[in-house]
Amino acid sequence: MSSPGTGMNALVGVGVGPGDPELVTARAVRALREADRVVAPASAVDAVGRAESIVRQACPDVPVERLAFEMAPGPARDRALGQAAGRVVELLDAGLQVAFVTLGDPNVYSTFPTLAAVVRAQRPATTVETVPGITAFQALAAQAGTVLLTGTERLHLVTALDGPGAVARALVDPDAAVVVYKGGRHLPAIAKALAAAGRLDGALVGELLGLPGERVTSVADAAAAPASYLATVVVPPAGSAGGSR
Amino acid sequence: MSSPGTGMNALVGVGVGPGDPELVTARAVRALREADRVVAPASAVDAVGRAESIVRQACPDVPVERLAFEMAPGPARDRALGQAAGRVVELLDAGLQVAFVTLGDPNVYSTFPTLAAVVRAQRPATTVETVPGITAFQALAAQAGTVLLTGTERLHLVTALDGPGAVARALVDPDAAVVVYKGGRHLPAIAKALAAAGRLDGALVGELLGLPGERVTSVADAAAAPASYLATVVVPPAGSAGGSR
Repeated sequence: MSSPGTGMNALVGVGVGPGDPELVTARAVRALREADRVVAPASAVDAVGRAESIVRQACPDVPVERLAFEMAPGPARDRALGQAAGRVVELLDAGLQVAFVTLGDPNVYSTFPTLAAVVRAQRPATTVETVPGITAFQALAAQAGTVLLTGTERLHLVTALDGPGAVARALVDPDAAVVVYKGGRHLPAIAKALAAAGRLDGALVGELLGLPGERVTSVADAAAAPASYLATVVVPPAGSAGGSR
Repeated sequence: MSSPGTGMNALVGVGVGPGDPELVTARAVRALREADRVVAPASAVDAVGRAESIVRQACPDVPVERLAFEMAPGPARDRALGQAAGRVVELLDAGLQVAFVTLGDPNVYSTFPTLAAVVRAQRPATTVETVPGITAFQALAAQAGTVLLTGTERLHLVTALDGPGAVARALVDPDAAVVVYKGGRHLPAIAKALAAAGRLDGALVGELLGLPGERVTSVADAAAAPASYLATVVVPPAGSAGGSR
């Protein structure tokens, strides 16, 4: 936050964590309060998204403008992204400092960098900043009592957007904790890959963390059906104390 | 926080982020205030550690008891750990709820899980909980304007405690962001490994993030000499927009 509230052309990506409003940092709250306009992604302009619902709880007095986004790749997503960026440019041109709310952390698998790049292509002088946020895998590990890393183990953070291939590759390293994002749809295949690697024991899946409908359970128990898009899977290093606390 | 303030035998590991007191979450503040006793690791009982200094700023009214820890592996560290755990057991036996402060996140390369395991070995009924915290790599990425992950890239989080070998192995994957913890001492060798992999451009190192003496610079510029123990190195995926914002 080099120049908050100065009215300069600034776009700030603000991470608000995975769901629980208590996991929002003081800096994120300040960034939301100091912005002239807070915008949040939503599936439609008349639908309250997860990020907006966190802002409503953490900063009830801060109004949020929704920008419609499309999750599935394709022309509809590109069009929505262009429209959202156009709206941000309008706000910046009006001299407003804009805060864009993201779930988790804006630099870890969020929409923010892509949006910021489109905005910067049109308004190169825009200052872009980010405020880090607690990620879903950290909240899941804390809630489930799973130690991810203690000594010299490694952590591999992968997505399963394209299927379980990236998960299988990460499992090659037995001393690495593996975190899988956006793998809900492929959960049965992920469970199969974990079982084949002898890593199903202790592996956890979490959905809607900190929100109504939250589910935290073992991958083994959830493997029969797909989970939701933003489900998070955490696999402790092989032979670690993870999950045994 | 299943049973805060109930006086049950509970030990809570509280992540307070890498240094800036504004990066502490509301839940961490609550856990510190609700604990009967807040303890923090320090290099000596008469030295204020980083974690304690964050608590002093985020919760000035919360007193902190120091537990002497030893960083270097060996008998001195084991002895210090045993003494620290013994003190925690004393506090728990007195019916106090104890909060142990950690830099960053208690489940990601912190001392807390090891301490908690020693305590649980002596008092198996102790409830152990953690509160997640912003990690140093997230703060570094935000501060430097480095996007770590957008689409289906991966992130490898490794330590360089044993030298640059783990870094070199992680660099094999060009589409992965690589984060190196505890690599200060080996920074010249890490820079060499990055250069050999064509990944030196855009790689950043940060020290004392959010604290007096903070340094955030390119690895190329810092490679001539060792950095400090807790230095963090961030390497964006090859060919990404990382660092170009």
